[in-house]
Amino acid sequence: MDSFSELLGARHARLYDSAIQDMIELVHSSGALSFTAGEPSIDLMPEQDLRKALFKAFENARELMGYYHDSSGLVELRDWIAEWTKNEGLLPRHLNWENILLTTGSQEGLSLFTEAVIDHGDVVAVENPSYPEAFLAFAKEGASIEAVPIDDEGPSTEALENLASRGHVKFFYTIPCFQNPSGSVTSLERRKEILELAKHYNFLILEDDPYRNLWFEEAPPTSYISLHENDGRVIYLGSFSKVVAPGIRCGWIAAPEWIFKTLHRLRVATTLNLPAILHLGLLEFLQSGGFTGHLEQLRKAYRARRDGLVEALHKHFNKSEFRFEIPKGGFFLWGEAPGLKDSDSFVKFAIQNEGVGVIAGKTFSPYPAKANEGAIRLSFAKVSPEEADEGCKRLKRALSKYMNLTQEGARTNE
Amino acid sequence: MDSFSELLGARHARLYDSAIQDMIELVHSSGALSFTAGEPSIDLMPEQDLRKALFKAFENARELMGYYHDSSGLVELRDWIAEWTKNEGLLPRHLNWENILLTTGSQEGLSLFTEAVIDHGDVVAVENPSYPEAFLAFAKEGASIEAVPIDDEGPSTEALENLASRGHVKFFYTIPCFQNPSGSVTSLERRKEILELAKHYNFLILEDDPYRNLWFEEAPPTSYISLHENDGRVIYLGSFSKVVAPGIRCGWIAAPEWIFKTLHRLRVATTLNLPAILHLGLLEFLQSGGFTGHLEQLRKAYRARRDGLVEALHKHFNKSEFRFEIPKGGFFLWGEAPGLKDSDSFVKFAIQNEGVGVIAGKTFSPYPAKANEGAIRLSFAKVSPEEADEGCKRLKRALSKYMNLTQEGARTNE
Repeated sequence: MDSFSELLGARHARLYDSAIQDMIELVHSSGALSFTAGEPSIDLMPEQDLRKALFKAFENARELMGYYHDSSGLVELRDWIAEWTKNEGLLPRHLNWENILLTTGSQEGLSLFTEAVIDHGDVVAVENPSYPEAFLAFAKEGASIEAVPIDDEGPSTEALENLASRGHVKFFYTIPCFQNPSGSVTSLERRKEILELAKHYNFLILEDDPYRNLWFEEAPPTSYISLHENDGRVIYLGSFSKVVAPGIRCGWIAAPEWIFKTLHRLRVATTLNLPAILHLGLLEFLQSGGFTGHLEQLRKAYRARRDGLVEALHKHFNKSEFRFEIPKGGFFLWGEAPGLKDSDSFVKFAIQNEGVGVIAGKTFSPYPAKANEGAIRLSFAKVSPEEADEGCKRLKRALSKYMNLTQEGARTNE
Repeated sequence: MDSFSELLGARHARLYDSAIQDMIELVHSSGALSFTAGEPSIDLMPEQDLRKALFKAFENARELMGYYHDSSGLVELRDWIAEWTKNEGLLPRHLNWENILLTTGSQEGLSLFTEAVIDHGDVVAVENPSYPEAFLAFAKEGASIEAVPIDDEGPSTEALENLASRGHVKFFYTIPCFQNPSGSVTSLERRKEILELAKHYNFLILEDDPYRNLWFEEAPPTSYISLHENDGRVIYLGSFSKVVAPGIRCGWIAAPEWIFKTLHRLRVATTLNLPAILHLGLLEFLQSGGFTGHLEQLRKAYRARRDGLVEALHKHFNKSEFRFEIPKGGFFLWGEAPGLKDSDSFVKFAIQNEGVGVIAGKTFSPYPAKANEGAIRLSFAKVSPEEADEGCKRLKRALSKYMNLTQEGARTNE
């Protein structure tokens, strides 16, 4: 029955499975203790209030059972988002609801923007490590994905300039706050330097910012899009997935006028419309007055989980065995085990032998064959301090066993 | 601020606005009596039962507030769809829920399929007239869209063969039941002939079937995908938009194995996940037992509206002024006014001068500059018999005035 495969388009060969989804499935089916999923904890979602808000929307808006007239999405929610992000200093004053396009999570934002600007072979610069589902959207359109390493202040300007000076970069994709997977925050100074580079080499910046509100000690620097160094070349992706509920599937693009119409036309061509009734429910929740308090609760809860994981790591590993920076927000802790040579094989070993799931560092590299070999990502979003302790105990055992095995193997091969 | 436009990709130039959306907006803002929207009537949606079902879903499935594990969509709804369409004889027995991918309306089905198979310059054959939003999805990927006229039995096999023999056609896009906009139904014999052509010239068939259940006198012939002449080259698009509520945004693709994985990967790359909570609500409604009765009610109600429109047309026009076939299902009546030279200019005239909205025939042609000039589409889905009478009175006045004006203009120019 494979006689039709030849009728698939060239894009077909550029698609591949999500390594993270595969790993989450594997962990789930094996019943392992999991640090894998980069998703919010169900018990921290505003379940009651959100349900109440959704009921209210369904009761009061029968016309939303029909098609919604504006394919960019529910005008009132777009207006709420514009005002909220302006009040937070994250959106330039001259942008408003007409610059906001609602999306099916940030993934659709990544996809629509990529479809708007990328021709086959165009270069996209990404942080290394970075979010691999974004690579899927870029690869789908035939982008050539190039890596920029991250240092203490954020993405390396030297590496980015080196790349941009060698050939045209179409855009730089960055997660500046509590980055997935590294947890790093790009400093204000670094953001300004990168904006200057973008102007000099005429590339765009795609700012993906879903973790911003989940800070533990202090709020991160303001967004690229709101900096006065931005001359209109930043497109911003926001999301309610991490701070309300991913099942609502609501994110947004904040985009200047020059690209907005193209994004809107892509929306029409790809889906016509999103479910405005869900967006009205979300708006009811956001306007009900509890959202600010909810964000505070989330920060507190995730900080406690971060602390639980850090404590467990300190308890079970010494510094030479597992090195990491303490994340200041978000969901992720990124660490390296010196001497670990193949994190991909290690994470499978850890699930099978010790029942603990983490994601291999190479998953987050645009060059999976060689990068981030010794690194792993641990998500603490869904892990209690007790589970973190047990999980780290298992992880330590798995790592010791794996290192012994591979060192023995190496000796045998000598 | 237009200095960034040069950074848009080549796809940008292939996008354009939806002429139907523009027209609906124009009619809406002018307050005209409207035959424009191809959408179900709000008062015929199962509002109470659907709301009850959605409430139940929200109350019982807090885990669906998180990410759903399968990006192809809620397994239980896919299973319900597979069983339902099998029972109706519309899906081959060897396909099951693993061949069903839920979509954001049929539009996402059109888009995902196009992205899976079309390379720039590939030929897509479409019926003429046909659904223009589909053209948007095809054009976005750079397809070359070629027209196949429709006769009493459906799309012309002669024209399709002529096209396929001149150069490779990648797929034939067809709406075989109560077609938008012509209302035509493709006969069983014609379906088989087209399948034989598809096999001979090795093209795929994209079967878009949202109106099938809205038959007024007798059920239409079975689907292409279920015919034994189909060797695996038919991809089927279904939708709940016309028979439940478009605001739920739920359609599906039924696709054989050889293309399913590609469609699934495209889903992951473009949106990761759809809102499974809405799909569970829809499933609750479908399983509640009232769906069959609801479909019967819809058929009765839309048949009465069809009858109202036909009666009004017979009352206000004589046969030489406006010619049409009586549609046997769906939402649309397609007619031609002999002597009308520019339906696009006429429909604007009709809105402005007589306050009645219809869609110009050329909107439905892949060659908008010259085809279907004398034709217009009237949707009766949202129009009561009384409104139909008033609307046809206005339409008649508008047509008479317009014809007089243009004939005077023509005489003046002689």
